[in-house]
Amino acid sequence: MSGARNMEDYGLFLALLGSALLVGFVSVVFSLVWVFSYREGLGWDGGSAEFNWHPVLIVTGFVFIQGIAIIVYRLPWTWKCSKLLMKLIHAGLNTIAMILAIVSMVAVFDFHNARSIPNMYSLHSWIGLTAVIFYSLQLFLGFAVFLLPFAPAHLRAALMPIHVYSGLFIFVTVIAAALMGITEKLLFALNSTVYSTSPPEAIFVNCLGLLIVIFGALILWMASRPHWKRPPEENYKVHRPNGGAPGGMEAESTMTDGSNADRSDVGFNSEAARKRNFKLDEAGQRSTM
Amino acid sequence: MSGARNMEDYGLFLALLGSALLVGFVSVVFSLVWVFSYREGLGWDGGSAEFNWHPVLIVTGFVFIQGIAIIVYRLPWTWKCSKLLMKLIHAGLNTIAMILAIVSMVAVFDFHNARSIPNMYSLHSWIGLTAVIFYSLQLFLGFAVFLLPFAPAHLRAALMPIHVYSGLFIFVTVIAAALMGITEKLLFALNSTVYSTSPPEAIFVNCLGLLIVIFGALILWMASRPHWKRPPEENYKVHRPNGGAPGGMEAESTMTDGSNADRSDVGFNSEAARKRNFKLDEAGQRSTM
Repeated sequence: MSGARNMEDYGLFLALLGSALLVGFVSVVFSLVWVFSYREGLGWDGGSAEFNWHPVLIVTGFVFIQGIAIIVYRLPWTWKCSKLLMKLIHAGLNTIAMILAIVSMVAVFDFHNARSIPNMYSLHSWIGLTAVIFYSLQLFLGFAVFLLPFAPAHLRAALMPIHVYSGLFIFVTVIAAALMGITEKLLFALNSTVYSTSPPEAIFVNCLGLLIVIFGALILWMASRPHWKRPPEENYKVHRPNGGAPGGMEAESTMTDGSNADRSDVGFNSEAARKRNFKLDEAGQRSTM
Repeated sequence: MSGARNMEDYGLFLALLGSALLVGFVSVVFSLVWVFSYREGLGWDGGSAEFNWHPVLIVTGFVFIQGIAIIVYRLPWTWKCSKLLMKLIHAGLNTIAMILAIVSMVAVFDFHNARSIPNMYSLHSWIGLTAVIFYSLQLFLGFAVFLLPFAPAHLRAALMPIHVYSGLFIFVTVIAAALMGITEKLLFALNSTVYSTSPPEAIFVNCLGLLIVIFGALILWMASRPHWKRPPEENYKVHRPNGGAPGGMEAESTMTDGSNADRSDVGFNSEAARKRNFKLDEAGQRSTM
């Protein structure tokens, strides 16, 4: 079955990936231009320059890097790499994104505290902090269940659709929170009267918001096309003896993304595996998102 | 294959559906309490009471009704209804949502014009209007391709994954725009100093924002579980003679949601249909989102 994977639209995938990288990179550049050309630049002094780390690190880490982490299993040239390596890259990128998101929140709390502005009163802050908490929880659970070799296959299979769904939902929520943050910041920095006259900063930062939405649309499209999934590793495993030592960890690790989640407990016997996969496909479990 | 549908979690589906209906209904009530208890109520006089139709109609139509329209094919007790009837319900609910969204925009433009406030300067307005335009386009194309009997099966099959994806993406974008709108309105109505003291209105409307996010999460979960899809109608069609008149429209109409999209051109021969479906499953086309 894995051999039948349709890669006739490989070029389309590359075009979308290139577009996502470009739009994501331009978003990061826009966030830097915003804080350096229209605002107070970057610093760590409790003032506006410290606050400015917030949009820059959110766009860089919590939007761009998180987006790339989501689609990293789908890059066709990584399919020959071991699943364990890809899991480490997926987890590593998400860890970097989490650290940047936390530092970006520290910058805002510092800034608020230095100016005696209350924390956590806005809908943006409620949803943003909730997203960071769920993101950290998702990373911790993902590490414990899918990266460490202790979780049984049936637990991995049961949790994978939830992992995929909550990962995509958190990504979408982060983008929504970023758009609310842009709205807040423009209203604070320009006030509503100036914002309503559409000065260059307003137009420029609105465009940053649109770029983030387009980036999200591209990542979600790539992440939800079933035929762009990393192929299951049955063929690989068929060549290993049952319980063979070097394949042990690898066999464990065939479950990290949605594509292989439901093929978790495929045996080393190819015929049994094929039947098992067919049954799962039949139950409509193959692609979860 | 359709007989193998797993409904062991039927109770879970009902619990999620009940939760979504409750959360969606409470969101609508919250929007009404907001405008009647904290704001100027509803009216159509160019003043604040006219503006207030905007949040009420967006939450009612563009969030709640759109959400229900998305999952209407997944209600198990509708699976015995004809696909055409379900398409009419799906299209009808989306049409109601579109009309309410347009009326809600007219209310804002009227309000802005009466007070000489510029239109279309905020990121909220850019993304909100874009969502309304794409939603209308989606409805028009959906009507032309999937409801009218003229589009060939291969066109329907090719467009269905895009229809499903863009429907869900527009729904998410509408929720993001609603959250930005709440942020804007609280900052306009309370100003940032009062908002930061967390008065009852701010807490209450932040909670409305959270309810909308939870509603979105429930709808997206229900809409993206492959085993909760409306079953394909092969068995139904097997009992009809090839080209039989009463089944003609029905056969055309087996394509409206993602579940049946890729089974579009299944023949009336059940064995051929089974093979065809298997091939499509193999290509990973079965569930698009």
